[in-house]
Amino acid sequence: MSLLIKNGTVVTASDIYKGDIYIEDGVIKEIGINIIKDADEIIDAKNKYIIPGGVDVHTHLDLDVGIAVANDDFYTGTVAAACGGTTTIIDHMGFGPKGCNLKHQVEVYHGHADGRAVIDYSFHGVIQHVNDDILDEMEEIVEDEGISSFKLYLTYDYMIDDENVLRVLNKLKDLKGITTVHCENHGSIKRLREEYVKSGFKSPIYHPLSRPVESEGEAVNRMINLAAIAKEAPLYIVHLSSALGLDYIKMARERGQKVYSETCPQYLILDESKYSLPNNEGLKYIISPPLREKKNGEALWMGINEGYIQTIATDHCPFAFNKEKQMGKDDFTKCPNGAPGIEERIPLIFSEGVMKNRISINKFVDVCCTKPAKIFGLYPKKGTIQVGSDADIVIIDPDKEVTITNSKLHSNVDYSAYEGIKVKGYPILTISRGEIIVRDNKFVGKKGRGKFIKRGKSDWDNIL
Amino acid sequence: MSLLIKNGTVVTASDIYKGDIYIEDGVIKEIGINIIKDADEIIDAKNKYIIPGGVDVHTHLDLDVGIAVANDDFYTGTVAAACGGTTTIIDHMGFGPKGCNLKHQVEVYHGHADGRAVIDYSFHGVIQHVNDDILDEMEEIVEDEGISSFKLYLTYDYMIDDENVLRVLNKLKDLKGITTVHCENHGSIKRLREEYVKSGFKSPIYHPLSRPVESEGEAVNRMINLAAIAKEAPLYIVHLSSALGLDYIKMARERGQKVYSETCPQYLILDESKYSLPNNEGLKYIISPPLREKKNGEALWMGINEGYIQTIATDHCPFAFNKEKQMGKDDFTKCPNGAPGIEERIPLIFSEGVMKNRISINKFVDVCCTKPAKIFGLYPKKGTIQVGSDADIVIIDPDKEVTITNSKLHSNVDYSAYEGIKVKGYPILTISRGEIIVRDNKFVGKKGRGKFIKRGKSDWDNIL
Amino acid sequence: MSLLIKNGTVVTASDIYKGDIYIEDGVIKEIGINIIKDADEIIDAKNKYIIPGGVDVHTHLDLDVGIAVANDDFYTGTVAAACGGTTTIIDHMGFGPKGCNLKHQVEVYHGHADGRAVIDYSFHGVIQHVNDDILDEMEEIVEDEGISSFKLYLTYDYMIDDENVLRVLNKLKDLKGITTVHCENHGSIKRLREEYVKSGFKSPIYHPLSRPVESEGEAVNRMINLAAIAKEAPLYIVHLSSALGLDYIKMARERGQKVYSETCPQYLILDESKYSLPNNEGLKYIISPPLREKKNGEALWMGINEGYIQTIATDHCPFAFNKEKQMGKDDFTKCPNGAPGIEERIPLIFSEGVMKNRISINKFVDVCCTKPAKIFGLYPKKGTIQVGSDADIVIIDPDKEVTITNSKLHSNVDYSAYEGIKVKGYPILTISRGEIIVRDNKFVGKKGRGKFIKRGKSDWDNIL
Amino acid sequence: MSLLIKNGTVVTASDIYKGDIYIEDGVIKEIGINIIKDADEIIDAKNKYIIPGGVDVHTHLDLDVGIAVANDDFYTGTVAAACGGTTTIIDHMGFGPKGCNLKHQVEVYHGHADGRAVIDYSFHGVIQHVNDDILDEMEEIVEDEGISSFKLYLTYDYMIDDENVLRVLNKLKDLKGITTVHCENHGSIKRLREEYVKSGFKSPIYHPLSRPVESEGEAVNRMINLAAIAKEAPLYIVHLSSALGLDYIKMARERGQKVYSETCPQYLILDESKYSLPNNEGLKYIISPPLREKKNGEALWMGINEGYIQTIATDHCPFAFNKEKQMGKDDFTKCPNGAPGIEERIPLIFSEGVMKNRISINKFVDVCCTKPAKIFGLYPKKGTIQVGSDADIVIIDPDKEVTITNSKLHSNVDYSAYEGIKVKGYPILTISRGEIIVRDNKFVGKKGRGKFIKRGKSDWDNIL
Repeated sequence: MSLLIKNGTVVTASDIYKGDIYIEDGVIKEIGINIIKDADEIIDAKNKYIIPGGVDVHTHLDLDVGIAVANDDFYTGTVAAACGGTTTIIDHMGFGPKGCNLKHQVEVYHGHADGRAVIDYSFHGVIQHVNDDILDEMEEIVEDEGISSFKLYLTYDYMIDDENVLRVLNKLKDLKGITTVHCENHGSIKRLREEYVKSGFKSPIYHPLSRPVESEGEAVNRMINLAAIAKEAPLYIVHLSSALGLDYIKMARERGQKVYSETCPQYLILDESKYSLPNNEGLKYIISPPLREKKNGEALWMGINEGYIQTIATDHCPFAFNKEKQMGKDDFTKCPNGAPGIEERIPLIFSEGVMKNRISINKFVDVCCTKPAKIFGLYPKKGTIQVGSDADIVIIDPDKEVTITNSKLHSNVDYSAYEGIKVKGYPILTISRGEIIVRDNKFVGKKGRGKFIKRGKSDWDNIL
Repeated sequence: MSLLIKNGTVVTASDIYKGDIYIEDGVIKEIGINIIKDADEIIDAKNKYIIPGGVDVHTHLDLDVGIAVANDDFYTGTVAAACGGTTTIIDHMGFGPKGCNLKHQVEVYHGHADGRAVIDYSFHGVIQHVNDDILDEMEEIVEDEGISSFKLYLTYDYMIDDENVLRVLNKLKDLKGITTVHCENHGSIKRLREEYVKSGFKSPIYHPLSRPVESEGEAVNRMINLAAIAKEAPLYIVHLSSALGLDYIKMARERGQKVYSETCPQYLILDESKYSLPNNEGLKYIISPPLREKKNGEALWMGINEGYIQTIATDHCPFAFNKEKQMGKDDFTKCPNGAPGIEERIPLIFSEGVMKNRISINKFVDVCCTKPAKIFGLYPKKGTIQVGSDADIVIIDPDKEVTITNSKLHSNVDYSAYEGIKVKGYPILTISRGEIIVRDNKFVGKKGRGKFIKRGKSDWDNIL
Repeated sequence: MSLLIKNGTVVTASDIYKGDIYIEDGVIKEIGINIIKDADEIIDAKNKYIIPGGVDVHTHLDLDVGIAVANDDFYTGTVAAACGGTTTIIDHMGFGPKGCNLKHQVEVYHGHADGRAVIDYSFHGVIQHVNDDILDEMEEIVEDEGISSFKLYLTYDYMIDDENVLRVLNKLKDLKGITTVHCENHGSIKRLREEYVKSGFKSPIYHPLSRPVESEGEAVNRMINLAAIAKEAPLYIVHLSSALGLDYIKMARERGQKVYSETCPQYLILDESKYSLPNNEGLKYIISPPLREKKNGEALWMGINEGYIQTIATDHCPFAFNKEKQMGKDDFTKCPNGAPGIEERIPLIFSEGVMKNRISINKFVDVCCTKPAKIFGLYPKKGTIQVGSDADIVIIDPDKEVTITNSKLHSNVDYSAYEGIKVKGYPILTISRGEIIVRDNKFVGKKGRGKFIKRGKSDWDNIL
Repeated sequence: MSLLIKNGTVVTASDIYKGDIYIEDGVIKEIGINIIKDADEIIDAKNKYIIPGGVDVHTHLDLDVGIAVANDDFYTGTVAAACGGTTTIIDHMGFGPKGCNLKHQVEVYHGHADGRAVIDYSFHGVIQHVNDDILDEMEEIVEDEGISSFKLYLTYDYMIDDENVLRVLNKLKDLKGITTVHCENHGSIKRLREEYVKSGFKSPIYHPLSRPVESEGEAVNRMINLAAIAKEAPLYIVHLSSALGLDYIKMARERGQKVYSETCPQYLILDESKYSLPNNEGLKYIISPPLREKKNGEALWMGINEGYIQTIATDHCPFAFNKEKQMGKDDFTKCPNGAPGIEERIPLIFSEGVMKNRISINKFVDVCCTKPAKIFGLYPKKGTIQVGSDADIVIIDPDKEVTITNSKLHSNVDYSAYEGIKVKGYPILTISRGEIIVRDNKFVGKKGRGKFIKRGKSDWDNIL
């Protein structure tokens, strides 16, 4: 199987140039000027951008949150991803039975994903509790299973306390893995939720009011200091939503600390006003951390440009507005947290970021493809366009205008958080390991063709 | 009983002028030029500074820390205070039996202090646990007992979790009281201590190594955010020791938040090198937070000048080097935490601060006398020199040179943390409510003459 | 002549207390509780604040700006000041004939002021050019004439270049005087004005557009660096108007540099929208630097609270709207720069600052009275209430509500920049050296009673 | 002519991968895995890094500084550059006769360079004076001559005043060119030099003492504000040497301003102590701005990592220590300013930066090759390795250890500023437009083979 992409403009995290790309056996074999070669298919990419396939390092497929199960499985979710220009995901291995070991979930998730996913995937470990056994097991998971990142929650049922956070940071530092963290202060949120509910304040707007920016800022900064105590263990903060959290990250990076952070399209593009929509539509946006006041989004764009934020992921976790989300119709605390977005990421960031001159096209590739791959040990297999890399490639037509509407999206859910937003520029072809799997918004690949990727370790000295 | 102080230079937090002071019935009745009046005693203060009596808002007399009891009771401790130019203390009401209510300790501490103290005193409540009863009781303590500040520990046995911290902040805000906090991150310190001890690292230097600046910084910033969540509840951070903690305070104050902080002479003048003294003398400096690298002290002086730190107190808590401190001789974790300092504060800050041009003489009065009184509702009775205020007055001879040595100090302990330091300028007369109680370093008052002060509420709008 | 003020609440930069004040021979002789004494007049100040007379260190009386002469002479101007609660001014000695020496203006200004001023006054020297003679003369002016501050302009005809700025900074540092500076970048303003005028953009809004915040910020920071090069020469920045300038001052003070700054009521309370008023009323606000966007005012209030700004003065320089200001009716560059305000300062800052809880009442006294006196060597004669100080005292009725309107003001001009603003709290009595000169907004003193004050040197170590 | 480079590790500003590179007609034609092709020469780059040829955007060849002429002409200078791994320079078009127009220098410099240079080159315009003619001429120079950057000096004989700086900024913004600036405050330096010389302080140490960090900081910040006033005209600050200057750049970039900056190896690696070397060797380091205290270098490395500094250039300007530099032996002000360094840049930054883990290898390529090319309109022809780009390629052997010594360098000068420094990693092959011009430190190309490059405009939206 071979492919030849001709006449396009290739974009990497630092470069942009005209060139042809020849693909064989799923790998980029050659990049050249005017390559003349036989190929099973020749694609004309004239006036199109050729970017590395998107890498979404924050998804929740098949996620069971206890009160509900997210509606996308590894088939529907990855089809949606592929249609949106994403060719690799790192999914979170959810929550197993209380007290279960780490391997339990590795097996469960291979059960979910293997044979269903249509793009390549890896998993983040999720730490439900910490003890010596778990720490020992982490070593096996990193070394044998190729899963080199673990996520901690500082809130929710499986929150990890500071002492155990420190143990994990130390352990993963030794293993050359990375600790990722959901940063929200548990105690304050618990208290505020209880108070609001007790006072009868249960509509969606009390969701953000009970999770103020200071709850995130506190937790971000706590993690920064714990990582510093763990002799500069690398730290990755997921779904940063606030200018306050960003300020703490700035301070730490200016002291030279290795802190990486991720934000999501929802925090860049949407804002708190969504919670006041009529018809209880605010339920659609019950996610944690919540949407914030507009000025936070502006600060986050600036943080991307100044290099304080390295990645944009989605936190895709879809619940149906007309079904699961309605659990919260009389009480926001009963609503399952999460929203879809796996398919909209690349189009939104291209359109709102690049086309509106908020970020350069290289920065777009960097935060959506390259840095996520580098930070999580997927690079150079994934995340860039260069010879030897997997031929995960997306072609974007910068002139294609699309109004986002759920009916044209592929996630198994009944709404888009971005309904009605007009984007300029859209992926028109998605290639995964040399195979065209999406043509013009239509999935043309095979179920289960995606492969699990054993990830390597991160080369911290070469990631800024 | 009347006193007339003539020819001195009166110093307040903002002013400096020549004037005579006439005192009657324990109160400043008149400030004038060349007052001619009969008085029981006339004091010539020519070439001397007349300052408000020192207010030390952080002491631990009669403190039972479980493994040992601090050596100063309310008699010896307040005699030492008086000899050092301090005329009011706010002592912490220690720890009662687990689960005891707040009044229990009020009674215990009146038992300790009443009839023994030689200067006026108040108490800080200490929160050992939080529940509805305790919160209700706080109202009575504030209103009826005149105790309007409560201290939380974020580490040690009686550490309060974030949710309950928030409840206390909210409650005290409503009561117009103030929350004071010992800010150190518990989990990281616990872990580091355990690891060092397990590895056989037990000498005094492992004390600071197990309590890094990030442990303090984390906790300071956590409290700042919790206070912000409590709709800008006022917050007072005790014994700040690090530049990192100060940075977080700066950020908060520049956002307009009401955060006050205290540092102590030990953090300004001493440094981490003390832990490596021969003969295990490092045990003398086992205090929490620990002494830091020198650059932290420099940052703290700057923080005082720029107004980010409002008070200097002592955290006086004396254990004998040759007795209690030796409990830690083979293992620093067994050593009771604390050091003396109640008597050295005013001389040290005058000499190291004013005489070395680090701070102005007005700033000296502000941080040692006025701001502590204002923040804790003692003002205008205490903390300044003006008509109507209590005649708590100290006369400092700026030319008197003294080498600090424990044998000339009055605390019931066998060492001074400042042994050998030469100071220029020393208190030569201490007046408490119009009564001369110290003359030339000799206590001449009566045991038990000190009175408990019911404190008022703080006027936050008028304290910067 | 003696006065006794009874039952009032005395306020200083750090204190607030109830006390009686006895005044004799123009000096505060005694402060006491319930003073019983004969006096020529006894004033009941119950429920009133007694503050030090205001010190306005930035006025322009009798100023000849070449194209017009400011309408207040030392009589009308100081009557207005007194009615507004100000008892001392430092006026700028304007511009003499090109090349004139410094003494020339000293004589001219004594000619203007002596025998006319109704409150005490001093002068700032104004540097029109720099050479060895001028520098030598500065020494005599400081030592013999008691004028220890000199102003430099970085724009306008008499702008001083960087090299000569450095010479002045060095000289005044040696003389223990202080350099004050009008900070605006000349070249950019010149260019922008020319461009706007050439393009036919001549209405008042082009005044602020041609003097952007960056022009001020640049010049502020240039002066900061020149002062640092002059081995930390003290520096006083007049009429700071922008958040950007404040940011540079913050940076410098956090490095420990002695930089003081002044803002004015117009920059705190008014904003750029004034330039778009109908009927060309924008001309009233043609002042330099110009009014700014609202967020700048908010930053300045914060700068006052955080101690980065030490004084509030007026830059009083009145031109009649219907006369001199009309010179600019077709071209803003033809309009004489300046606005009145000497009378409104104390009422505005009390009402907008203290009564609206933006600043404490002590901070109000500090920035309007005490710090100006300290920085310019007037203290302790002026700027505070303490025995031995001049009896310059103002009584404020916090309940008196006034709508500011020019017809009730005393400046010789036909408009107030603050017309229609309602203030709560107003001076009801002004005492200068023990003499009541204003009663209920009516000047009752004698023309020419004001005295020139030979100023001393500043005690930099004791001013923060 | 064709070349095939096999088995190497290719490094770009964001990527690193194994690949072969095929070059034909001076251009990179193909990048592939295991390319099998005939080629005139096949190079084995196993275990070597293949980087884009270095781009040095700050050189002074043939420079006449009035009192002396720099010793390298375009032949010797570019041979040295090539041997050090640099394949493109942008040289400054020096100073022509007073009042000359811009084209005069274009002709002079083509005279210097054409037929002599051995690598490709462009010129920066140098503004000696500003008037309407010059501004008009700039348009022609940008459009017709392909010279799209102009340098201003804020000090020296041809310093430009603020008003004219603003005109240039505006003009170049309109032309989509860029203004580059030598930022030092003229007045303060002039004054300090005069004072030191008058006092007899003439040894080399007075060079840095007369050019303090504040002189640079001031000028950097002035330019930032003038560029902001010019409606965000792009600005490039040459040879940044101080942490203070960097602080101002940070502030501006965090406000979103387009400010780029360059530092040089000497400011990163050397420090002020050099001026106190015996035998007057300090003269070797008489450069402006001067070497600084060590902490500045540390701040600059951090600034590179955090993205505040985009490029590293050399400011190569060699004068012989035993000849021209001796003009300053009795008086530092008589010494021509400048030092060599064109050859040492790549080895020093690779060794001190990459090998010592201060920066990643991608960042090394970015600051030495890619960003300089992007900022100055040379990209994508120069500055990266991708198909279609000029085959300007350097092969670095990371294991080659070299002690820098002048005898092995190629500049026409008698000393190296880095004599004795051991580096690990050294260029072993330099290719310019597909031609091998340096093999193992020996120039093997032809004199005059270098070509002048007409530069395009910069794409500001795609450069961070």
